[in-house]
Amino acid sequence: MTDHGKPSSPQYNPGKGEGSPVGIALLGHGTVGAQVLRLMQEYSDELEHRIGGPLEVKGVAVRNMEKHRDSVPAELLTDDAFGLINRDDVDIVVEVIGGIDYPRELVLAALKAGKSVVTANKALVAAHYQELGDASDESNVDLYFEAAVAAAIPVVGPLRRSLAGDRIKSVMGIVNGTTNFILDGMDSTGADYDEMLAEATRLGYAEADPTADVEGYDAASKAAILASIAFHTPVYASDVHREGITNISPEDIKAARAAGYVIKLLAICERFNNEEGQEVVAARVHPTLVPRSHPLASVSKSFNAIFVEAEAAGRLMFYGNGAGGAPTASAVLGDIVGAARNKVHGGRAPGQSTYANLPIADFGEVYTRYHVDMSVEDRIGVLAEIAKIFTNHGISLRTVRQHQGEDHARLILVTHSAREKDLEDVVEELKQLEAVRGIESVIRLEE
Amino acid sequence: MTDHGKPSSPQYNPGKGEGSPVGIALLGHGTVGAQVLRLMQEYSDELEHRIGGPLEVKGVAVRNMEKHRDSVPAELLTDDAFGLINRDDVDIVVEVIGGIDYPRELVLAALKAGKSVVTANKALVAAHYQELGDASDESNVDLYFEAAVAAAIPVVGPLRRSLAGDRIKSVMGIVNGTTNFILDGMDSTGADYDEMLAEATRLGYAEADPTADVEGYDAASKAAILASIAFHTPVYASDVHREGITNISPEDIKAARAAGYVIKLLAICERFNNEEGQEVVAARVHPTLVPRSHPLASVSKSFNAIFVEAEAAGRLMFYGNGAGGAPTASAVLGDIVGAARNKVHGGRAPGQSTYANLPIADFGEVYTRYHVDMSVEDRIGVLAEIAKIFTNHGISLRTVRQHQGEDHARLILVTHSAREKDLEDVVEELKQLEAVRGIESVIRLEE
Repeated sequence: MTDHGKPSSPQYNPGKGEGSPVGIALLGHGTVGAQVLRLMQEYSDELEHRIGGPLEVKGVAVRNMEKHRDSVPAELLTDDAFGLINRDDVDIVVEVIGGIDYPRELVLAALKAGKSVVTANKALVAAHYQELGDASDESNVDLYFEAAVAAAIPVVGPLRRSLAGDRIKSVMGIVNGTTNFILDGMDSTGADYDEMLAEATRLGYAEADPTADVEGYDAASKAAILASIAFHTPVYASDVHREGITNISPEDIKAARAAGYVIKLLAICERFNNEEGQEVVAARVHPTLVPRSHPLASVSKSFNAIFVEAEAAGRLMFYGNGAGGAPTASAVLGDIVGAARNKVHGGRAPGQSTYANLPIADFGEVYTRYHVDMSVEDRIGVLAEIAKIFTNHGISLRTVRQHQGEDHARLILVTHSAREKDLEDVVEELKQLEAVRGIESVIRLEE
Repeated sequence: MTDHGKPSSPQYNPGKGEGSPVGIALLGHGTVGAQVLRLMQEYSDELEHRIGGPLEVKGVAVRNMEKHRDSVPAELLTDDAFGLINRDDVDIVVEVIGGIDYPRELVLAALKAGKSVVTANKALVAAHYQELGDASDESNVDLYFEAAVAAAIPVVGPLRRSLAGDRIKSVMGIVNGTTNFILDGMDSTGADYDEMLAEATRLGYAEADPTADVEGYDAASKAAILASIAFHTPVYASDVHREGITNISPEDIKAARAAGYVIKLLAICERFNNEEGQEVVAARVHPTLVPRSHPLASVSKSFNAIFVEAEAAGRLMFYGNGAGGAPTASAVLGDIVGAARNKVHGGRAPGQSTYANLPIADFGEVYTRYHVDMSVEDRIGVLAEIAKIFTNHGISLRTVRQHQGEDHARLILVTHSAREKDLEDVVEELKQLEAVRGIESVIRLEE
């Protein structure tokens, strides 16, 4: 297996030299592409200083040219993306199309032709991490994707460079603005999921088909990318345990609020030793209870926040606007400057680093905490029966709260950290228990 | 003037090739140096993968060898720093001594000898930014200093790289843990400055001579570095308006609390148009009122937080542990990995970028807001007299609160944004006013 921690030195490219123009092919002209094109023009003087030569857009490839005739100069517009990529005067290919299969072909074609690639496409990177890294290594060109995670919030760069001398233990955060907008709205207004989704759609925070956001696919792609970089191990979107927010009810939110928590959709990437003592990694996305005093609890609206815990650095947080045309374009432009500098002066950014190649844990092996809310019979001995089930699985309880109902009791339990599999087994057994009338909700919890 | 936005391409160094060891000279073996040495050993396998070759410590230079005999292997220990730097097998010089003049000589000697330099020394970088940048350009080697600002919180790297395609408007934050520990303690316990300083010293948050921290020199150096990078303009520590926290009284803290504010020592770097319409930059450090709802208000103990506002990216925040041996060493090691990668594979990090070279505004030109707390005579017409002074200087008031005392009134005014000079003039005139018995406090305010 190739070690992707380093560029392969023999094919080293010494650069075009100072003052040389750098040719850009822009693939896609949607919300992000249009902002990239605008800002490349608006900032052209500054960018030239920072790069050491001017950027020149050689073409903008779109599927349907008619839709873009008014906004893209005629001499740049094309529907022949492969033709554009292969032009001799194109040095860097910027992919802001979205989707997986078609952009994969384009990006691989660009890398094979010796062009550096900047992409904002989280689904693509999370599905083909190793393949894209290999292709960039083989041609000794750059592959940048800062915009694929949390838009303009610098997190890919800091993980790959600033923290390159540390050991990262976990990366956890709110990486999807749409679901955060919905959950934050449910929490602050009492609205239900459908009302907040409609509001998010009206304001442009949710797409016509919101599946990728609300079912956690978008967050899972980002979790896969973050885990891959942080743990030097290829982790794919399909490796990420994923639960969305569509089942979160106003009652869940209300109960969380009463207990001092807020519900957030978190992406959690961890490196840990499993029960066999083997070092493994895991990535998961699910609704999570967070104490109201936790900094993640105050991440409102469509903002993103990412916590990184490293051995030497301790805990770090990165916060900002994780979506939108201009913030995403800012990240794309930062990557273009990096790739263009290397084209002018030589050198290469750190390649995909997968040397650790740690095993990926099953979701059942992950350690987590459960918050279980259930209705139980109101009689002596019920709590003892329930507690016994936890004890049998080696799980200890951290808090137990009981509220008296008319003819039943409401029991809210929070466990200490335990294996997901054991917690799941306990819940199954609780469901079978005659004394348990119903499990109202089971939500994982982070502190 | 040289354009430091780019490395000079002709002398391009193609690298030593994969597998080649990279020789490290460590200058200094204090809190940070000891952690750097420890972590280089502990992480040596991972670092080798990430770099493409092993790191080899060639020597540790200290002033007094006796003090370090127990902790540094005898074959590494030396008191001849220049001799160590000039060894043929040293590729990267890591400076963690502190001070300005002596480390400046060492760093310049290293750069001139073609060694890349990693330094954690904010005072040095803030005093000799351009000179050090020129020296690294001339030898076409790297100069890294992530650890000079906010320890392990990645902010130098993100500003130089991730945000290289954006226009930064301001950088503002809490960059000194000692003063934040003191102010946070005064706010939460009601203790006075001297008590909290003693506590900070006892816990190791403050040095025996706390001047650099409490008088704002440390924060001013960091502000100078942040402004230099963000605005592509050399800004020196001596250009930074600096006020410390030694005059902050428990009464100031209590009054701030009553009005919904907390007092923080902020470093504020801005790019703005002055009254003549000229684009200028300014950096300042002073105690500042921050609303309790502002994210900076909740930065407690010795933590640091830095806000960056950029045109396209919007507002970003970086948060974490801004001091301490291990967090600072994490940043140093990240820089060592970057410099070592370039030694192995060729290429160079972006050099010091000062192409914009914007004029530095006088402090009087800066726009800020005042919170003025004063005792005034309790009679009709006083408020009108006072308001007239503000109006004469073109300053409008945002809030006016009046409390009745026994024989006088307490008047608390918050202004809208205005020129510092005009605000200072107003305060001078207020002092002359017969109706004003005394100005209790004047503190600037940020929202």
